[in-house]
Amino acid sequence: MTGQRIAIIGAVAAGGSAAFKIKRIQPQATVQVFEADEFISYAACGLPYYVSGVIEDYRHMIMRDPADFAQAGIELFTSHQVESIDLSRRAIHVSNQKEQARKTFPFDTLLLATGARSFIPRVEGVHLHGVAGLRTLGDGLELYSMAHQSNIKRVVIIGGGYIGLELAESFKVLGKDVTLVEQQERVMPGIDDDMSALLEEEVSRKGVALRTGESLVAFAGDRQNQVRRVITDQGEYDVDLAVMALGVVPNSELAAEAGIRLGSRGAVVVDRYQRSSVPEVFAAGDCAETFHRVLQKNVYIPLGTNANRQGRLAAENICGVRKEYRGSLGSAVAKVFDRSLARTGLSEKEARDHEIPAAATKIEARDNAPYYPGGSSLHIKLVYNIFSGEILGAQIVGSEKAVKRIDVLAAAISSRMTLEELSDVDLAYAPPFSEVWDALSVAAAASEGERLRKKDLTGKEPS
Amino acid sequence: MTGQRIAIIGAVAAGGSAAFKIKRIQPQATVQVFEADEFISYAACGLPYYVSGVIEDYRHMIMRDPADFAQAGIELFTSHQVESIDLSRRAIHVSNQKEQARKTFPFDTLLLATGARSFIPRVEGVHLHGVAGLRTLGDGLELYSMAHQSNIKRVVIIGGGYIGLELAESFKVLGKDVTLVEQQERVMPGIDDDMSALLEEEVSRKGVALRTGESLVAFAGDRQNQVRRVITDQGEYDVDLAVMALGVVPNSELAAEAGIRLGSRGAVVVDRYQRSSVPEVFAAGDCAETFHRVLQKNVYIPLGTNANRQGRLAAENICGVRKEYRGSLGSAVAKVFDRSLARTGLSEKEARDHEIPAAATKIEARDNAPYYPGGSSLHIKLVYNIFSGEILGAQIVGSEKAVKRIDVLAAAISSRMTLEELSDVDLAYAPPFSEVWDALSVAAAASEGERLRKKDLTGKEPS
Repeated sequence: MTGQRIAIIGAVAAGGSAAFKIKRIQPQATVQVFEADEFISYAACGLPYYVSGVIEDYRHMIMRDPADFAQAGIELFTSHQVESIDLSRRAIHVSNQKEQARKTFPFDTLLLATGARSFIPRVEGVHLHGVAGLRTLGDGLELYSMAHQSNIKRVVIIGGGYIGLELAESFKVLGKDVTLVEQQERVMPGIDDDMSALLEEEVSRKGVALRTGESLVAFAGDRQNQVRRVITDQGEYDVDLAVMALGVVPNSELAAEAGIRLGSRGAVVVDRYQRSSVPEVFAAGDCAETFHRVLQKNVYIPLGTNANRQGRLAAENICGVRKEYRGSLGSAVAKVFDRSLARTGLSEKEARDHEIPAAATKIEARDNAPYYPGGSSLHIKLVYNIFSGEILGAQIVGSEKAVKRIDVLAAAISSRMTLEELSDVDLAYAPPFSEVWDALSVAAAASEGERLRKKDLTGKEPS
Repeated sequence: MTGQRIAIIGAVAAGGSAAFKIKRIQPQATVQVFEADEFISYAACGLPYYVSGVIEDYRHMIMRDPADFAQAGIELFTSHQVESIDLSRRAIHVSNQKEQARKTFPFDTLLLATGARSFIPRVEGVHLHGVAGLRTLGDGLELYSMAHQSNIKRVVIIGGGYIGLELAESFKVLGKDVTLVEQQERVMPGIDDDMSALLEEEVSRKGVALRTGESLVAFAGDRQNQVRRVITDQGEYDVDLAVMALGVVPNSELAAEAGIRLGSRGAVVVDRYQRSSVPEVFAAGDCAETFHRVLQKNVYIPLGTNANRQGRLAAENICGVRKEYRGSLGSAVAKVFDRSLARTGLSEKEARDHEIPAAATKIEARDNAPYYPGGSSLHIKLVYNIFSGEILGAQIVGSEKAVKRIDVLAAAISSRMTLEELSDVDLAYAPPFSEVWDALSVAAAASEGERLRKKDLTGKEPS
């Protein structure tokens, strides 16, 4: 028996994970992976650290090279652009960008792992030299070379999400003048305002000129088409380099043209098995929607963790190992100078937007015993159902060594733990690591106390 | 209405926690706390760091002082030794050690929080000068003064548990010649041999002469009754200072004399509400047994975390707030030079001793992305039920910043998560904090794979 023929479009996170997993489960399957880019299987989350020089060699970020694909028996086609999907014939039409050739590949099953691209606003001057983005490894190499030019002194970053904040640190490490422009009133839209305020304090303290509530209007250049000014609704900034970090949009045009259903954010709609609206087409990673574990419905959360997990899961289901996606919590962590941030589950704002009867409690505690040197402050916010006490989300701002405590909350939310149950978990203690009551125990107990008071004020649960 | 009269014997961890909690719930209650020592409410876990000078002032380890007790309306009697408990009259007989006076105090409810003391073996020379222990703050002050004498050069530590290993580091920090003698074949009896081997590597690498499988026989002194040699079953060591760290025994003689039931390890038997065999007597902390969450039965786990939690819980139940102890996992963490150790739940050895059908899997992973600088190796061992996949315990050896991941496992065990469920928890990722698959996800997935293979070999679950 010959195995099934599986085509995978995309070879970065989801596509690469899926290809290797399929070959492990079904060695006899034909797996063909098409990647428009020349680079494959790299850790895009490392790019801000490559730009700053913290990661010295970009090749270290490449997790698997073409030889690894070949060794696993995977047929890899880099610099191959998939032009269209023909569902009636179960085939894809592909152009080889190097040889200017076109070819058709039949498939039994197709996996879309086309990822996402930077959102580029339609403003004047957006194509000037010196207006950059940071999404692909190619972007990273280009930004690195500009960042390390001595005549590049003034950098404006547009967008204050994860990448924007990480890049602000990268450029300060390189000694640049850095301005960060964010359209919203607060940086880091995935967390609540009271927590993002703590990051803004840190960013400003480290010398970044922070301009929140300010919108990009245009870029202006010189006669060499080199960007010279960033123009916003509130002012103008002289620049040598402008970097856009305004989030991403899914690469879902191929799917849409083939009649595969997209969701409201333009991502491919998938079920709990990563299957699209067309039975023989699966999707995974940043091109697809993600099932949210707390909301129990699909949302769009483009994160490398989800992409890898969904890629593997798609592979299992493609191979007939029926496995359901338990869902993402949007868990994330980021280093922002000397204050790090972590989040999981729903923010207070998100819970409210989804009309969940939620409340939140914020505490400040120490990340080690108060009498042990080297500790620092840890801010923990818990979001919970005011009636049941079930934990819905959490945000932590604190030192680099302390914020991975978020994973305890990810486990707690995954088990549908209540605040009271969390407060009774036996957490480990020694003076270099925590107070005798770990900050999470303190947060859980304080939240439960506040919940009981708020619940009495709120009255009965709506029936 | 006047409140009930509550006597508490002991004012360190459990006793102090309980006293304050009772006054918060029942401000009208009379709370009298009797402490034989002059020091109260100190963080005993900080003592090894005080000895080394890492903690500069012992007063920083005192969490609450007599003025705090007075302000909360608690009557505190330090240097007061309780001589006996008269259950028929509901009274305790107390001697004031400073004034050589005796007095009787009646109670409605009594809380035993008498703690534990260092185990001192009956060997020759154990009372020589320079043979020390480290349990109380008084011990800490004495050991500090000896440790900082320049003529004290050779230190032998007897016992390789938490305190023994922490003290080995403390004395190396002070530039001493350190020998550690442990009777068992491996240090750190609460973890499995394959994990303690990693600690032994580190301790030896840092220049501690490690002598495992070697038993103390006697101490020999000079004419000034100063210890000069430690004699074991395998050799003799010249010493200027010998420190015994052989674990603790519960201070339960008062309870036993009053006819209160003790368990096999000599600790006071308590129910899930911290009540002893005598209804009006509660016990909490190192003098009492601890309900184990996985074993669902009482064991003896003398730890500061348990003591504080049990003290609070006893207070709630004494005040009529009926609350059940969910149980301890024996969670603990310790810094051992540059390798730290954390544990929770059952070790493989413990699971076997309790005849649970358990297996274990050990992995090695990185504590941050492989391409990001400053990371190190993380060893994770998971212990699980071979049939159900339920996680029973975990041990981690790795860098100081990485081992608090143990708390994720404490939460998982508390929720009775399986390996497969843990492998699907959405853990946070960024290059400075973990690999894209956090080490815990890797451990859970690898363990589940190994479990399925081992289960097939083992056959059907015994019915």
